[in-house]
Amino acid sequence: MADKEVYYSDYLQLDKILDAQQLESTKAGVRADDEMLFIIIHQAYELWFKQILFEVDIVGNIFAQQGINDNSPDLQISVHRLKRVATILKVLIHQIDILETMTPLDFLDFRNLLRPASGFQSIQFKILEARLGLKYEQRHGQQYYVSQLRPEDVEKVKNAEGKKPLSDMVNTWLERMPFFDNKKFWEGYKSISKENKSPYIFWNDYRWQYDHSLLEAEKGNMAHFDTLFLNEKDYPANRQFSQKANRSALFIMLYRDYPMLQQPFQLLSTLLDIDESLNLWRYRHMNMVHRMIGTRIGTGGSSGKDYLTATISKHSVFKEIAELTSYLIDRHHLPKLSSELENVLGYSRT
Amino acid sequence: MADKEVYYSDYLQLDKILDAQQLESTKAGVRADDEMLFIIIHQAYELWFKQILFEVDIVGNIFAQQGINDNSPDLQISVHRLKRVATILKVLIHQIDILETMTPLDFLDFRNLLRPASGFQSIQFKILEARLGLKYEQRHGQQYYVSQLRPEDVEKVKNAEGKKPLSDMVNTWLERMPFFDNKKFWEGYKSISKENKSPYIFWNDYRWQYDHSLLEAEKGNMAHFDTLFLNEKDYPANRQFSQKANRSALFIMLYRDYPMLQQPFQLLSTLLDIDESLNLWRYRHMNMVHRMIGTRIGTGGSSGKDYLTATISKHSVFKEIAELTSYLIDRHHLPKLSSELENVLGYSRT
Amino acid sequence: MADKEVYYSDYLQLDKILDAQQLESTKAGVRADDEMLFIIIHQAYELWFKQILFEVDIVGNIFAQQGINDNSPDLQISVHRLKRVATILKVLIHQIDILETMTPLDFLDFRNLLRPASGFQSIQFKILEARLGLKYEQRHGQQYYVSQLRPEDVEKVKNAEGKKPLSDMVNTWLERMPFFDNKKFWEGYKSISKENKSPYIFWNDYRWQYDHSLLEAEKGNMAHFDTLFLNEKDYPANRQFSQKANRSALFIMLYRDYPMLQQPFQLLSTLLDIDESLNLWRYRHMNMVHRMIGTRIGTGGSSGKDYLTATISKHSVFKEIAELTSYLIDRHHLPKLSSELENVLGYSRT
Amino acid sequence: MADKEVYYSDYLQLDKILDAQQLESTKAGVRADDEMLFIIIHQAYELWFKQILFEVDIVGNIFAQQGINDNSPDLQISVHRLKRVATILKVLIHQIDILETMTPLDFLDFRNLLRPASGFQSIQFKILEARLGLKYEQRHGQQYYVSQLRPEDVEKVKNAEGKKPLSDMVNTWLERMPFFDNKKFWEGYKSISKENKSPYIFWNDYRWQYDHSLLEAEKGNMAHFDTLFLNEKDYPANRQFSQKANRSALFIMLYRDYPMLQQPFQLLSTLLDIDESLNLWRYRHMNMVHRMIGTRIGTGGSSGKDYLTATISKHSVFKEIAELTSYLIDRHHLPKLSSELENVLGYSRT
Repeated sequence: MADKEVYYSDYLQLDKILDAQQLESTKAGVRADDEMLFIIIHQAYELWFKQILFEVDIVGNIFAQQGINDNSPDLQISVHRLKRVATILKVLIHQIDILETMTPLDFLDFRNLLRPASGFQSIQFKILEARLGLKYEQRHGQQYYVSQLRPEDVEKVKNAEGKKPLSDMVNTWLERMPFFDNKKFWEGYKSISKENKSPYIFWNDYRWQYDHSLLEAEKGNMAHFDTLFLNEKDYPANRQFSQKANRSALFIMLYRDYPMLQQPFQLLSTLLDIDESLNLWRYRHMNMVHRMIGTRIGTGGSSGKDYLTATISKHSVFKEIAELTSYLIDRHHLPKLSSELENVLGYSRT
Repeated sequence: MADKEVYYSDYLQLDKILDAQQLESTKAGVRADDEMLFIIIHQAYELWFKQILFEVDIVGNIFAQQGINDNSPDLQISVHRLKRVATILKVLIHQIDILETMTPLDFLDFRNLLRPASGFQSIQFKILEARLGLKYEQRHGQQYYVSQLRPEDVEKVKNAEGKKPLSDMVNTWLERMPFFDNKKFWEGYKSISKENKSPYIFWNDYRWQYDHSLLEAEKGNMAHFDTLFLNEKDYPANRQFSQKANRSALFIMLYRDYPMLQQPFQLLSTLLDIDESLNLWRYRHMNMVHRMIGTRIGTGGSSGKDYLTATISKHSVFKEIAELTSYLIDRHHLPKLSSELENVLGYSRT
Repeated sequence: MADKEVYYSDYLQLDKILDAQQLESTKAGVRADDEMLFIIIHQAYELWFKQILFEVDIVGNIFAQQGINDNSPDLQISVHRLKRVATILKVLIHQIDILETMTPLDFLDFRNLLRPASGFQSIQFKILEARLGLKYEQRHGQQYYVSQLRPEDVEKVKNAEGKKPLSDMVNTWLERMPFFDNKKFWEGYKSISKENKSPYIFWNDYRWQYDHSLLEAEKGNMAHFDTLFLNEKDYPANRQFSQKANRSALFIMLYRDYPMLQQPFQLLSTLLDIDESLNLWRYRHMNMVHRMIGTRIGTGGSSGKDYLTATISKHSVFKEIAELTSYLIDRHHLPKLSSELENVLGYSRT
Repeated sequence: MADKEVYYSDYLQLDKILDAQQLESTKAGVRADDEMLFIIIHQAYELWFKQILFEVDIVGNIFAQQGINDNSPDLQISVHRLKRVATILKVLIHQIDILETMTPLDFLDFRNLLRPASGFQSIQFKILEARLGLKYEQRHGQQYYVSQLRPEDVEKVKNAEGKKPLSDMVNTWLERMPFFDNKKFWEGYKSISKENKSPYIFWNDYRWQYDHSLLEAEKGNMAHFDTLFLNEKDYPANRQFSQKANRSALFIMLYRDYPMLQQPFQLLSTLLDIDESLNLWRYRHMNMVHRMIGTRIGTGGSSGKDYLTATISKHSVFKEIAELTSYLIDRHHLPKLSSELENVLGYSRT
């Protein structure tokens, strides 16, 4: 093996890669010069989806361990790999610029020949959503599973949905965090007075001073805090993250300046970046589809635009984490931690 | 004047530009290192809004002429300047990456000090929307005009809303186009048979073959075509573009391969690009706000996120043009033009 | 065929595409998690190179016609397709961001296993350079042809080098342009006085007023103008473009405001964009290689960095066109064209 | 103060910002519509340079402390701020796209009116280079200081050059690192055998097996290692970083998987990113200038292109760090650290 010389085109299997573009328009004897672009850009997307899945799996394997060893590079490797996913997604979003050079009229040259194929059939993308944490019940357009996908592909997606996703593993990891699960702490947090500038801590609409009816809305905000962080029995069953995990996540966001919380904070931030980028990809993709085919029905038989619009809001796996930012307070009013805890959160080299 | 030597910092008036950052946190005696970024990025946005307005005004002046002279560079200059606007908007969207390096906690360091200032008060942005064609009645959140803007600023926006916007001028220009306003042509267009593959021309859901109830939906599509292009008395009064303009716009999209229609097609495309980029800017901005402040009330007293979300769909000035793509048919079935018309649409150098 | 339903993964041949990643590290029993990225990014590049070649070939076929028909969409299609190439190149440049998430240490995990494969062996890229107009004699590192490429690959590159490239066809097209080849015009152009602000027309270093020795340099500039545009017998034999073509190109740049010259101007501009983007790709690639392997020898046995640096300057196919900008003068001093010529350059619909 | 309401345009001082564009062409009575763009883009650049300087100063103040406290967020704040600088630079590079929408002919409309102003006179950029670590002796075109800058501006740059720059502070910080300065370690490192695949450790040109003359080059590589890391008296005096700092930097790169070395590794990486982005900015800027004015003399009297080209290679402050990657070896062959040291490099929570 040491002596075998590697050759670029063999290594990359370019014979396969560059011989996988067969135009339906050519088969039909129609000239449609943009079909090549259509094929190649989708193949490029699928290649990158494979890479993203590969990275997410590595992170999943790390988090599937009994406990992440804080003394190992586990967490930083996870952050690094998720940041790479975020970087890839930025390029995939940019890539839509290329598809937008195809005008609607150019698409019509071959669009009918593709029926009923559609991007909805991208199994890798569905598996990615499942791996991140999207559950079958949360999916928009579940009914299409059966009508649009081949049985073996339905099987693949179901399989991915059956495994413990990254969001669950992150939930476990957050729950496991030792020092932050102190309800008394959160009771105190809730009652911090911000120098009398507002009657309630998370509220910053100064108009309450003139309009006392706004105080009711403020009370609602506090009740929501109780639900998310304190009252166990009221906690809704269908949430992605547990109350315990919420407390850890908020603690990490608030005290991320401590060295020990840097990587955890980076991890949460990067997961939110990924959610945001996936949504941006769906959003730009949806716009492009809209511009390309107007309000027509997509090749897959659904309105492509509506499907994409719906998934933007519904398929954000980590949105519960994102929404915790509503309960941050400013650094200058943060409760001081005990010196014991401070020590644990630093690099205690004594 | 010829002899006066120009100096970089004088020319750019850097004494003003670089001395216009006064931190509220400094005044309040609080350390908030990210406020500088917050100020500078908004100043950069406003500088670019000035440039965009400058370009849109040049285009407006060209279109305000009695008739655009097709033998002059008027149209290509307009396209060039609007393409520049699209390029600027791409950078402005990218610029949000910078603001996203400010974490929610960092923003809280100085957020309360800014009340009730908010991006809603960007007069240049509102003027830009008005110049492009957004009418007062179409605005989301009209009520804020009075409560949030100073009287002189309300005045400025009203002024801009009072002038003939670009969309109206484009409408006039489309209506003026001499050769395309032929209803018989469109009657014929509507009845083109696509080799029996679908019962109606704009429909391409092959499922009608199995599910005859879908034929009703198809009829609706044809009726909509009549409304948009043929039946004068049914035409809704509140549309941005007239029926006559619709016909020209669709004709341009269909026959853009003729040299004479290249620049008109580029013009329409670029206007759609601008709409799309403005929406993408609003979308990314909205996400950023959401991530920064959660579901809290914005510094301007409204929920910043909701305002931005609402404007994404409502403030698209050229969406009626975008939706005409629903009525394109593929190039191979396009009615052949008379050789007389073909001659006019080419460079007739005979 | 009409009845055959197309399925996404069949259409894209994902069985081939997604089964073409075989890690050398896996074969060698070493763990190197970044090799997957290394393979996939190069496959993505090769897919896009295929697309770029496809577009360049379409343009080549258009320009290979006896004469481009100005009354047809030939030129605008060419511009459109070349602009797409420029858009693709921007994404390919951005894509380097992804590879930069691989650290030098991560690359070392599998780097030795790839010897002697190297990006130098990308045949498609070499063919692209040849199609655009790079000649064998102009190539940096010709000697590697034999030592690094398989005979059948050398053959492919030689083949591409043997065909008439795009640059030659553009040269022919420029030479063919009817109205601009008027030497008297250029004699006059050369002698335009710019209101006595400089002694020579292309010179704008005001320091000549103080430093008379600079006048010599100015004279050199004028002599160069003569060589490029006027004196036939001094014209160097080894240039990519002819003197006649130079005149047309400069004329197009100067009088591009006329409708008839818009598409020709766009064509030249886009070719320069492509050159610039290819160089930027080489530049960023070179930096990335430098950062990844320092001053070591590349896997291909040469110093990858030096090869890339050298090609940046040497492989710019259209640089002669780019350099003509030295001989532009400002619009306000341009010689007025005859009304006869003006008519020809407009849309003469009389 | 609490009661004062902040207003958007006051807060951003838009009266100053939006009133700082005075066109020389307007003064001269010439129409040059692109001069507005030219002014605004340069003002946007200067705003961002101010922000970059602000961030670099914060980092400088952190590093100027007697010793960075590893138990504090000092290092992560520094990394965060430098990463923001890198993000800003990406947007500044992208921003060149906007300037490229100005064609050479459009620039000629007002170019002569700006003489002799030039980007060379950007004092903030020169101060930034100095703050990062560029010394006067390393500057390209020192002679222009006196001829092109006003005395008060020369003073400002000299002042910045007189202060301890970031590179020196990073050098001190690297030297201070306690555990890595062990020459015996590096002696051992140098002699690691890579399973007989190459005679010398840093060499990976397999051709030595066929071509024994290459062994000489390999020896040179080893001698260079000695100079950079081991032989004190041979160490060149004019280098930016000391031998001691080199050892720390290489150690950080090699053992960055340990939690304690994560932030140091991120710091070094980000400094290299900044260097690379500054160079890319210079490179794209240079290309743009070249395309805009050809080989003419810049408005500042020098050839703008040559100045920019020269600074690309010469003004990289951290290139010595970048070049250390030549001496990395792959992870699988890394010397194992003592368990004592391993403990120190982890989060030792015992």
